[in-house]
Amino acid sequence: MSVCVLAGGVGAARLLAGVIRAVDASSVTAIVNVGDDDELHGLRISPDLDTITYTLAGAIDTDRGWGLSDESWQAMETLRRYSTGAGRPDIGWFNLGDRDLGTHLWRTTRLNEDAPLSRVTAEITAAWNLGLTLLPATDDRLATVLMTPSGDALSFQEYFVRDQHEVEVTEVLVGGAAEARPAPGVLDAIGDAGVVIIAPSNPIVSIGPVLAVPGIRDAVAARRDRCVAVSPIVGGKALKGPADRLLRELGHESSAVGVARIYAELASVLVIDEVDAALADEVEETGMRCVVMPTVMTGPEVAEALARGCLAAVGA
Amino acid sequence: MSVCVLAGGVGAARLLAGVIRAVDASSVTAIVNVGDDDELHGLRISPDLDTITYTLAGAIDTDRGWGLSDESWQAMETLRRYSTGAGRPDIGWFNLGDRDLGTHLWRTTRLNEDAPLSRVTAEITAAWNLGLTLLPATDDRLATVLMTPSGDALSFQEYFVRDQHEVEVTEVLVGGAAEARPAPGVLDAIGDAGVVIIAPSNPIVSIGPVLAVPGIRDAVAARRDRCVAVSPIVGGKALKGPADRLLRELGHESSAVGVARIYAELASVLVIDEVDAALADEVEETGMRCVVMPTVMTGPEVAEALARGCLAAVGA
Repeated sequence: MSVCVLAGGVGAARLLAGVIRAVDASSVTAIVNVGDDDELHGLRISPDLDTITYTLAGAIDTDRGWGLSDESWQAMETLRRYSTGAGRPDIGWFNLGDRDLGTHLWRTTRLNEDAPLSRVTAEITAAWNLGLTLLPATDDRLATVLMTPSGDALSFQEYFVRDQHEVEVTEVLVGGAAEARPAPGVLDAIGDAGVVIIAPSNPIVSIGPVLAVPGIRDAVAARRDRCVAVSPIVGGKALKGPADRLLRELGHESSAVGVARIYAELASVLVIDEVDAALADEVEETGMRCVVMPTVMTGPEVAEALARGCLAAVGA
Repeated sequence: MSVCVLAGGVGAARLLAGVIRAVDASSVTAIVNVGDDDELHGLRISPDLDTITYTLAGAIDTDRGWGLSDESWQAMETLRRYSTGAGRPDIGWFNLGDRDLGTHLWRTTRLNEDAPLSRVTAEITAAWNLGLTLLPATDDRLATVLMTPSGDALSFQEYFVRDQHEVEVTEVLVGGAAEARPAPGVLDAIGDAGVVIIAPSNPIVSIGPVLAVPGIRDAVAARRDRCVAVSPIVGGKALKGPADRLLRELGHESSAVGVARIYAELASVLVIDEVDAALADEVEETGMRCVVMPTVMTGPEVAEALARGCLAAVGA
């Protein structure tokens, strides 16, 4: 039974760890957000692809929540010698660990050789012996842009890492989306899947850019009866990151109901956490069926149970 | 008394360490080869500039002879996970240490901001508290190319690092030289110097690309009476690197006499090592005056004595 997961970073990585405990990894495809991708110091970074890869490889730094374990920071220390000396705090705010840099060096080298990101991603996941398939939503360049009240346009990494998402956002744009094409295999993975799962990732800045690639939203909507979403909002709050604040700022409700309204046309089921059980009826008013179960993935067993719950919810 | 040094990497770095013991560092300008510069994995590397910077900062790894001390290699380890997995030994042969990577990240970031290499170099040397001025020969992109009998065109790093200079070379070209302009300050540093020194660097692939920048050779020739060269060939051999072999392959004599014939129009004095004392008459037949003294810089005292010998040789 093949499973296709629309994925952002941390929440999706944890759910995927559960999915590959529930079904054979070779039947799992994740379609991953690349709107957070950026170029830093000439190197191409793909934060969500790397977070999923490192998590599933058991190589993620679990304390930090991102990057590799046993990491060192010698390159950054040298870089900051220069940026501090030159009075340039605008350079060097993005932490690149030494181990992690090797991934960016490889990706950049291969992209400079005109290899598509999907192929480079396959090389990277193969090197970590991942059994599932990770596909970038597109091989084309996307750039999530966050507009502030003063009219500043922030890249995702400026917003998320540099400014620690402590700025007001008035609009989220996805640069490049209009011209982007789904990466090879993306539409087939959605169309052929026994179950499509929308991971508990940020609906605006993680799942949004995936759906913004022309063709992907329609492909998911066509599978609505086999598509289940997991709410990333639990008790009105995001477990991690700014999803709750972003939802409010952009006119949505920061609740499982707000998430339901966003996904109602795409998924027939919304899985919400037990703490939100009282919202089930309101969720179902959106036209989705509501499944209540533990969604806070504190360990692989919870993640596996959540994955199995998602599969069962659409009768798989 | 101002001193201007035409410089390659290791030999020049050692001589410069002696020069700044002999005269005030603020009066010293090195004009450095950038024909070895390359782009690797999206990062711009400038090996000779970095070798000089790290040497004068006391931060060079003296055992290895290049790169920074207390270095780690985590980024390369990750990179080679991918290149090995993908069967691509052609990627990852160039060692980039983690500490060293910070320099390349800074340089790449600043060049991507359209800062000229000369300005970036000044930022880097300031951060290491170097007292002298390092100038790239040009802010334009040079690329030393080594032709082999089979018609392969090797970049300098392919020739020097990947192939360990164990290939025959039929010709050395300097790509970009025809259009290159001397970096700001280069011609003035040569014209205003009390003494111009051609460091004991490889005449073909280190000093050659410096002189290939239009204007520099003429500027040095105009100062011939105040210009002194140090032979990098001692007892017929290069102390380090392939200078001896390259000289022979390109039709020169691998000896202090061969070096004299290359520099006779540019410098009025050639300093040769004591082991080559018997060649002094033959050197002087080229029209240069010959000074015989220890040139093997086993430590800073020898380097200082050599520097003082160079200054004295042209009456400074």
